[in-house]
Amino acid sequence: MRPGEGGARKMPVAILGATGTVGQRFVTLLADHPWFEIGCLTASERSAGKRYREAAPWIQSVPIPETVAAMTLQPTTPEAVAAVVADCPLVFSALDSDAADQLEAPFAAAGYLVVSNAKSHRMDRDVPLLVPEVNPEHLALLEYQSYRQGGGKGGILTNPNCSTIGLVLALKPLVDAFGVEQVHAVTLQALSGAGVPGVPSFHLIDNLVPYIGGEEEKLEVEPHKILGRYEDGVIEPHPVRVSAQCTRVPVLDGHTLCLSVKLGREVSAAAVLEAWRTFQGAPQRARLPSAPEWPVQVLDAPDAPQPRLHRDLGRGMAASVGRLRPCPLLDYRFVTLSHNTIRGAAGGAILVAELAVSQGVVR
Amino acid sequence: MRPGEGGARKMPVAILGATGTVGQRFVTLLADHPWFEIGCLTASERSAGKRYREAAPWIQSVPIPETVAAMTLQPTTPEAVAAVVADCPLVFSALDSDAADQLEAPFAAAGYLVVSNAKSHRMDRDVPLLVPEVNPEHLALLEYQSYRQGGGKGGILTNPNCSTIGLVLALKPLVDAFGVEQVHAVTLQALSGAGVPGVPSFHLIDNLVPYIGGEEEKLEVEPHKILGRYEDGVIEPHPVRVSAQCTRVPVLDGHTLCLSVKLGREVSAAAVLEAWRTFQGAPQRARLPSAPEWPVQVLDAPDAPQPRLHRDLGRGMAASVGRLRPCPLLDYRFVTLSHNTIRGAAGGAILVAELAVSQGVVR
Amino acid sequence: MRPGEGGARKMPVAILGATGTVGQRFVTLLADHPWFEIGCLTASERSAGKRYREAAPWIQSVPIPETVAAMTLQPTTPEAVAAVVADCPLVFSALDSDAADQLEAPFAAAGYLVVSNAKSHRMDRDVPLLVPEVNPEHLALLEYQSYRQGGGKGGILTNPNCSTIGLVLALKPLVDAFGVEQVHAVTLQALSGAGVPGVPSFHLIDNLVPYIGGEEEKLEVEPHKILGRYEDGVIEPHPVRVSAQCTRVPVLDGHTLCLSVKLGREVSAAAVLEAWRTFQGAPQRARLPSAPEWPVQVLDAPDAPQPRLHRDLGRGMAASVGRLRPCPLLDYRFVTLSHNTIRGAAGGAILVAELAVSQGVVR
Amino acid sequence: MRPGEGGARKMPVAILGATGTVGQRFVTLLADHPWFEIGCLTASERSAGKRYREAAPWIQSVPIPETVAAMTLQPTTPEAVAAVVADCPLVFSALDSDAADQLEAPFAAAGYLVVSNAKSHRMDRDVPLLVPEVNPEHLALLEYQSYRQGGGKGGILTNPNCSTIGLVLALKPLVDAFGVEQVHAVTLQALSGAGVPGVPSFHLIDNLVPYIGGEEEKLEVEPHKILGRYEDGVIEPHPVRVSAQCTRVPVLDGHTLCLSVKLGREVSAAAVLEAWRTFQGAPQRARLPSAPEWPVQVLDAPDAPQPRLHRDLGRGMAASVGRLRPCPLLDYRFVTLSHNTIRGAAGGAILVAELAVSQGVVR
Repeated sequence: MRPGEGGARKMPVAILGATGTVGQRFVTLLADHPWFEIGCLTASERSAGKRYREAAPWIQSVPIPETVAAMTLQPTTPEAVAAVVADCPLVFSALDSDAADQLEAPFAAAGYLVVSNAKSHRMDRDVPLLVPEVNPEHLALLEYQSYRQGGGKGGILTNPNCSTIGLVLALKPLVDAFGVEQVHAVTLQALSGAGVPGVPSFHLIDNLVPYIGGEEEKLEVEPHKILGRYEDGVIEPHPVRVSAQCTRVPVLDGHTLCLSVKLGREVSAAAVLEAWRTFQGAPQRARLPSAPEWPVQVLDAPDAPQPRLHRDLGRGMAASVGRLRPCPLLDYRFVTLSHNTIRGAAGGAILVAELAVSQGVVR
Repeated sequence: MRPGEGGARKMPVAILGATGTVGQRFVTLLADHPWFEIGCLTASERSAGKRYREAAPWIQSVPIPETVAAMTLQPTTPEAVAAVVADCPLVFSALDSDAADQLEAPFAAAGYLVVSNAKSHRMDRDVPLLVPEVNPEHLALLEYQSYRQGGGKGGILTNPNCSTIGLVLALKPLVDAFGVEQVHAVTLQALSGAGVPGVPSFHLIDNLVPYIGGEEEKLEVEPHKILGRYEDGVIEPHPVRVSAQCTRVPVLDGHTLCLSVKLGREVSAAAVLEAWRTFQGAPQRARLPSAPEWPVQVLDAPDAPQPRLHRDLGRGMAASVGRLRPCPLLDYRFVTLSHNTIRGAAGGAILVAELAVSQGVVR
Repeated sequence: MRPGEGGARKMPVAILGATGTVGQRFVTLLADHPWFEIGCLTASERSAGKRYREAAPWIQSVPIPETVAAMTLQPTTPEAVAAVVADCPLVFSALDSDAADQLEAPFAAAGYLVVSNAKSHRMDRDVPLLVPEVNPEHLALLEYQSYRQGGGKGGILTNPNCSTIGLVLALKPLVDAFGVEQVHAVTLQALSGAGVPGVPSFHLIDNLVPYIGGEEEKLEVEPHKILGRYEDGVIEPHPVRVSAQCTRVPVLDGHTLCLSVKLGREVSAAAVLEAWRTFQGAPQRARLPSAPEWPVQVLDAPDAPQPRLHRDLGRGMAASVGRLRPCPLLDYRFVTLSHNTIRGAAGGAILVAELAVSQGVVR
Repeated sequence: MRPGEGGARKMPVAILGATGTVGQRFVTLLADHPWFEIGCLTASERSAGKRYREAAPWIQSVPIPETVAAMTLQPTTPEAVAAVVADCPLVFSALDSDAADQLEAPFAAAGYLVVSNAKSHRMDRDVPLLVPEVNPEHLALLEYQSYRQGGGKGGILTNPNCSTIGLVLALKPLVDAFGVEQVHAVTLQALSGAGVPGVPSFHLIDNLVPYIGGEEEKLEVEPHKILGRYEDGVIEPHPVRVSAQCTRVPVLDGHTLCLSVKLGREVSAAAVLEAWRTFQGAPQRARLPSAPEWPVQVLDAPDAPQPRLHRDLGRGMAASVGRLRPCPLLDYRFVTLSHNTIRGAAGGAILVAELAVSQGVVR
């Protein structure tokens, strides 16, 4: 039975690194979650011991949920979490990668299932890099983690980089239907992805920055793993070649990607649209609470998608696509958009956790 | 002898459509020009008869030049211009394309050399589409225009689309040194290119628009002509294949292009940089007043070029390039930037006029 | 019994001028309204006959409600509305004032109760200018309108200017408790208030405009009427003196007002805060569907309120106040914020309609 | 004789804290100064020893001057400066106030005349707070500083807060002509005043912040001193009462002030305009190199001044005023604008230094 349903009690969860941008999104999205309830929030040494209300530089456009505002921040250790909430099997990590490098493994070792938004373990051989509509079968990799040997209950699941998610959601239906061989991607990324304090205002008024450190590498590498074929504890990387150029633009939320793709065979534009329009995956079939009804939404307006108008489709969990047309160099060009701090971070991680619960791997 | 030099008097010029964004740039750039002096300003029926100060919705960050502010706007006809300034051989057209379709040819027929920023005649077989550093030899096409038959002095010269200019300036040194076969371009274009009123604020606060009507076509077609080979009154189009995706971003001035190119042969990055760094053309050799010393400026910072920081290099007449690196799909990727209303519009047209004067085709 | 409650059917309503910014907000807010259902949408001649989906330049961040998208736009006449929906007693006017000058009175004469967001009739002697928490008793003025003579059911109710609403909501508790004699107001207004196309982007990137035509006059005059005392069909204007300076800033939604006030007597800051914190009015007592629980929300953060963070409080229907401190010239200074297209336009008008229904004046 | 004129050599100067926003402005403005030449740049411990090019996060829209780019940053001590440039009598301080508290006095004690943009010593009894058009006679206070006792050559001169300068420039002509008793000021301040990194982008896209820590106090206090009467080493504070409310808006440069004033006597609007239009001061009479011809420029357009359009008037050294009209509460209302990092910081300090040189107090 699912937690929180049919009389079952909700599953207590912890949020590691709860005060930052992504942490705040976890708080907002989990505040009324039907399955999970926030049992513990952690923060850095500097903030531990303070109430959440005082320590978090709150920048969401909804108020801090009352129950959360008064919670006392704990240090980011398994012991501290266990002292506050006894039977919490699941922790969401909103830690930045330096902190995640150090702090996530101890939680996994202590029996927690860590669902992480950090890049630290994404490319680890035995850690699934999950987009639930795209590669739910990779979840099986969890059983191969050392944390699970000898009956352990812990482990690490990861969520891709915020710009990768929109890319693989738009690609997956094409990969399945026609194959995808080459992708040329230029991103126009929102600044919320840069965290707080993030980019100084001075740089992004009447300006853009055509560079985001480390981002192009992630966008070129992560799709190989996510789109790869899983068999017996091993993921065979998908051979797609990706060229990525990443830019930061004065937009708050919503990453826009201008894409050109070379497909595995010649197909009509109608076939491409059909592939997107009919696409659903495991989260839709399992009716997971955070799953959008249609993960890829095709927009017809000639100037869509646009970040402010379309980032909230499917409560921020859907990718939108538009402007499909032939490419003089590859096969097709189009534009895709997804919400970088919902689908591309906290919301995506929560959907991973819902998948894990629904498949019985959270013990 | 050059006008305005060595005691020679300046050449009077007219500006057609002087009240709009591009017209205002012409006014600003010509106010202290060493060769030209503004003799006449024209506007639409609605504004003709008013003083420039009253009719122009001035949006430049320098005040309207005093001498210009008091000028009375004329209707956009050769007769009206001739009535105000007798010996004016040259007119700059800042007309929008609907107006230019109707109004430029009569000026050429009446003996004026029209240097136009409108798209109306750019692709006409006998009209040069000029970037003076790139294809000065195309100027010879002027003699083949009907306006020049039988001793006529008129004619039409055109300036490319604002996003094309940065592209061809960055490509030309590579075309000359190595050949260029394919170009993948995604543009992040400033909103001043959209004119006034242009894009409503509502669309570009916390947003971008991944579509600019007609722009991708221009960017894919114009380079063929500009980079083409001229011989005996005919331009053989250059065979480069261009894929363009154009977006509008919340930047005031300065078009940024993310480019990937396939070159004619394998070369080192050092060779590419060297080609850019040593590039100069006819305007530099002829020391034209508006020519930047170096038309392509290579920037070393990892996050350059940026519109606000670099659009004014070479007084807005240089293109800047940065972030050269290999492309997993084509050969090299880089970012280029140029000022869309200076080099990409009024300033570019003035440089065309300077080239024409220096080569003796303004009679 | 209230419409839409306890088995009663919803009341059909029409929206006049449904395609603009305010019209779109009406559509969004009425799509799931518990009492009202959209029966008819009207537009200008140019758009009448088209489907709403095709004619409205939709700029909301939620999609057009499906049922509304397919509706055919009608001309803005009582006959056209009656032909589509027979028993519709209530129309919301999102017309601009030029159209409203001509088109609202015929609806009132034809027996419709018009709830208008336009300025056209706001200052008419017999038209209530309503903020339901502030002056619900002014509703009685409706009976004195010519439209109601001889048993007519029509009439006109109006909603104040978008910047007036935040002002009077913040002032009302102080007026009641201490009296208010002078108000110095500087507004920093969002650009959505300027409609579509509204302010060109060029003016509001890296800029602000310290002028909004006609706005200061409204802000100085409307409070006299709204805060005035009603007796026997006459409103005695409140004598408060208001000095207003209005500016347009690069914010999408949410008008911020920097206020200094001279009160009727000396009071402590604590008393002012208490007056705001305990303030509720007729809409709260009647539990109207659009009424916020607390119409004035006091924020404690030293840098609050801020438009993006606080404009949505009370689903966009609450005013927020912050930064209360003594003023060296008058008595107290503070900052207030309200959502200009929800509370300040469509939402405010809907609350007026709810008040009218609950008091039985919609027949 | 003035330095740099008539064959005299330029005066070498140092810039303390040269890598920040204000330091960069000093570098830009002094690069081609007719009197001064940059002899030494200092920075924090962390940056000392590096070349300026490497250590300064350059954000100006003109390139780093070549001669400066290669200079090696020194520690901020008199000894370090003296080791690099022997005969430098003048240092400009762009230090933040924490650093200035510690580091400026040692320079003054070592015989340097420090012209500081920091708030540290502004309100010291014996330190002039100078706006050269407003209170040049306060320069005499320098002789009363301890640094000057016993023949010392050092001392400290200060420049007001960036928002104060526009205020006192606009007020001074009115103070002289009519007297000013009360001022109500609401500021809309640019973000460059917040330094680098300054305000995170996240806070100022689609938002504003109605609070700037410590700013209102400065704006309420500094005018008393600047407008005060100097006699025999003492400044009698001017009794004007100022109420200030400061906000941060998404503008890069240029502080806009909405002002209401109560004058000493009843005057016509024409008289006010005349007072502004004819105002000139010591810098204009002495033809100081950085002095604008007219320090207060009256703009006639109904929507002027605007930051992007008018901040550069007088090369960023003039204040502009517009929208003069009666105030229902005080006497007159108007809007004033000045460039916060030129006139309000580096440029203002340079003008102070020019005044000091021209009056012979730099020894």
